Amino acid sequence: MERIITLTTDFGAGDGFVGMMKGVILSINPRAVIVDITHDLAPHHIEQGAFLFANAARYFPPRAIHVVVVDPGVGSARRPLAMQLGETLFVAPDNGVLTHAIDHWRLSVAHPKIRAVRLANPAYFLPRISNTFHGRDLFAPVAAHLSLGVPLDALGTPLDDWVELERVAARRLGERIIGRVAHIDHFGNIVTNIEEEMLAGLDRARLVIRIGKRALRGIQTTYASAAPGDTLALISSSWHLEIAVREGNAAQSLGIRLGDAVVVETQI
Amino acid sequence: MERIITLTTDFGAGDGFVGMMKGVILSINPRAVIVDITHDLAPHHIEQGAFLFANAARYFPPRAIHVVVVDPGVGSARRPLAMQLGETLFVAPDNGVLTHAIDHWRLSVAHPKIRAVRLANPAYFLPRISNTFHGRDLFAPVAAHLSLGVPLDALGTPLDDWVELERVAARRLGERIIGRVAHIDHFGNIVTNIEEEMLAGLDRARLVIRIGKRALRGIQTTYASAAPGDTLALISSSWHLEIAVREGNAAQSLGIRLGDAVVVETQI
Amino acid sequence: MERIITLTTDFGAGDGFVGMMKGVILSINPRAVIVDITHDLAPHHIEQGAFLFANAARYFPPRAIHVVVVDPGVGSARRPLAMQLGETLFVAPDNGVLTHAIDHWRLSVAHPKIRAVRLANPAYFLPRISNTFHGRDLFAPVAAHLSLGVPLDALGTPLDDWVELERVAARRLGERIIGRVAHIDHFGNIVTNIEEEMLAGLDRARLVIRIGKRALRGIQTTYASAAPGDTLALISSSWHLEIAVREGNAAQSLGIRLGDAVVVETQI
Repeated sequence: MERIITLTTDFGAGDGFVGMMKGVILSINPRAVIVDITHDLAPHHIEQGAFLFANAARYFPPRAIHVVVVDPGVGSARRPLAMQLGETLFVAPDNGVLTHAIDHWRLSVAHPKIRAVRLANPAYFLPRISNTFHGRDLFAPVAAHLSLGVPLDALGTPLDDWVELERVAARRLGERIIGRVAHIDHFGNIVTNIEEEMLAGLDRARLVIRIGKRALRGIQTTYASAAPGDTLALISSSWHLEIAVREGNAAQSLGIRLGDAVVVETQI
Repeated sequence: MERIITLTTDFGAGDGFVGMMKGVILSINPRAVIVDITHDLAPHHIEQGAFLFANAARYFPPRAIHVVVVDPGVGSARRPLAMQLGETLFVAPDNGVLTHAIDHWRLSVAHPKIRAVRLANPAYFLPRISNTFHGRDLFAPVAAHLSLGVPLDALGTPLDDWVELERVAARRLGERIIGRVAHIDHFGNIVTNIEEEMLAGLDRARLVIRIGKRALRGIQTTYASAAPGDTLALISSSWHLEIAVREGNAAQSLGIRLGDAVVVETQI
Repeated sequence: MERIITLTTDFGAGDGFVGMMKGVILSINPRAVIVDITHDLAPHHIEQGAFLFANAARYFPPRAIHVVVVDPGVGSARRPLAMQLGETLFVAPDNGVLTHAIDHWRLSVAHPKIRAVRLANPAYFLPRISNTFHGRDLFAPVAAHLSLGVPLDALGTPLDDWVELERVAARRLGERIIGRVAHIDHFGNIVTNIEEEMLAGLDRARLVIRIGKRALRGIQTTYASAAPGDTLALISSSWHLEIAVREGNAAQSLGIRLGDAVVVETQI
């Protein structure tokens, strides 16, 4: 059966780990359509993985199966799980890496229902299971069997207490919105956890954005609103407040790292 | 309908941007065959992107649809376009990134005819369009709709004055051919804009190639013509003059960058 | 015909080389299912390529066609070959890069039979062959023709003296097992050439592993057996002895490189 299986990991491209997962999937379902979301997540960084994965997953068809493996606890007591949100299936370690995808689901439907199982049926794993690479030995074969129509219930036992990350959402404190840097992209653009909705009703031209030692006035429409080399604030493609340098690298120029504070002053 | 859609961008692999584009395409045409050409173009470097894309695109079947996104002007007045050269379709920002592909087309057919439209029909875009990521919101859905057979004309209004980059072709000046470095590849090989045809009729063994502080005599047949660690000139796989260090990194050893001058002396 | 063709190279992702190979394959067989194993092998490093490729290839279906191109001798007298091991086909330069895959085949079947041909029939190459990129001009089109059912014999002349790398296997010397570092992965984990089988019958808790200036006691079950930041020995996902730092980078912390010695003392 043709069905999309996406892969999101921190495995990098150089070791063949992702290739092995694809070999496992195609050995079980030769008609699976495998799509890489990214394999260059920051190693072991569950929170960033959860953020990036949720941003990308929403652009896939509802019947996709998503495999997400950022798994510093591989081989330990952390549970492997499969989860169903509507028609969409997820296979991942139970460490919170699905948190933002679950949040997105909760916000998009009227009556969100979540089904999850702890993966426990070895009939759907590889015969020999390593203690270091469940992406290949558990998650890939489970996703491939799901793509063939194996029901969720067959994979293991129901799970109700899956792990979700503590939300570190941006918040409004009086005249200020306090957020932080959630992601720095390939171009060095600084993506914050301040969602566009938090700016509703405010005069965007008069806002002051403070990050590192810089204060920027106003939120621009597009990179081209600034001159090449100039710093600006705008709305990112994931609909968050973003700080960028036009045709430059903002994170480097401003000396900013993941988790750094960002403050929006709404009244001057 | 099964149809090849290639992707060439400067988005890198780490942020899931390319994964999102694939999700968008497969949501519209689940049978599209998506192929990555590269996503590691130098950020915002339209000229290098145009060079590398044209080198690769010629190896694809004529009915391929090519999406090329190096787009420093995203969100500004630069126009988004779709173009048809023979059976081949292209979707890109109108900033010159298709220049070399157009040149290649003009050289390969007797009566080159080019049709282009400015993308303007929101029915073929995503419902919500960001100001920073037209690869996902415009170009990917347009390519997917083209792969389903939507005609070019339906996408927007005819465009006759598309942007082409100024040609900085190598040229012959008396006894010298003056060129420059067009690309430095993964191995550090230095690829120039001097095409093999410019060397026709010359005695390759007696040519002197000047680059940086080095002068090399003769054009060799293959990397193995030099000893490991030695510098040599030869013809690249894109049929340009190339300077390489056997089993080494020429750009690093010679301190060469994109755009540096290369001179071939044809008479000593 | 739908058939898997895998690609393993040292070409990197940035130049479009891999994209060209895919274009060539799909021009010949539009239904080929192309899977990347990795393109980030250490440039020109045949031995590492052979190790990583064999680790990954065993997870693919038997009818896969594997293209492996680490090819420092491209354009020289080194022969291009195609090889058949059971139902599995390989296309590569004849420089030893298939050595470990051949070893794996010899160990997995009772009566291993190997057929190989030197690629010599230009009908299955691209019309114009460069001296620097046989991945595109020879190996990709040959793999595509094989995927359409062209028999091995049609591709060239039988070859019986293919190149195999000298085995630098780990070995037992009295109370010691002497091995070396075969691979350092994306996480900085140090994978040795000491196979798990060599530890059979030994008391794993009492072994002492010496690497660089460190001595580690015991082989752990999983990364989680150590505290974050601590160094441990365990069995890798390729079933070799591995030295890791939990949630850290062992190769950096210990200053270890490819080829460095690793000693296991079996009796203290």
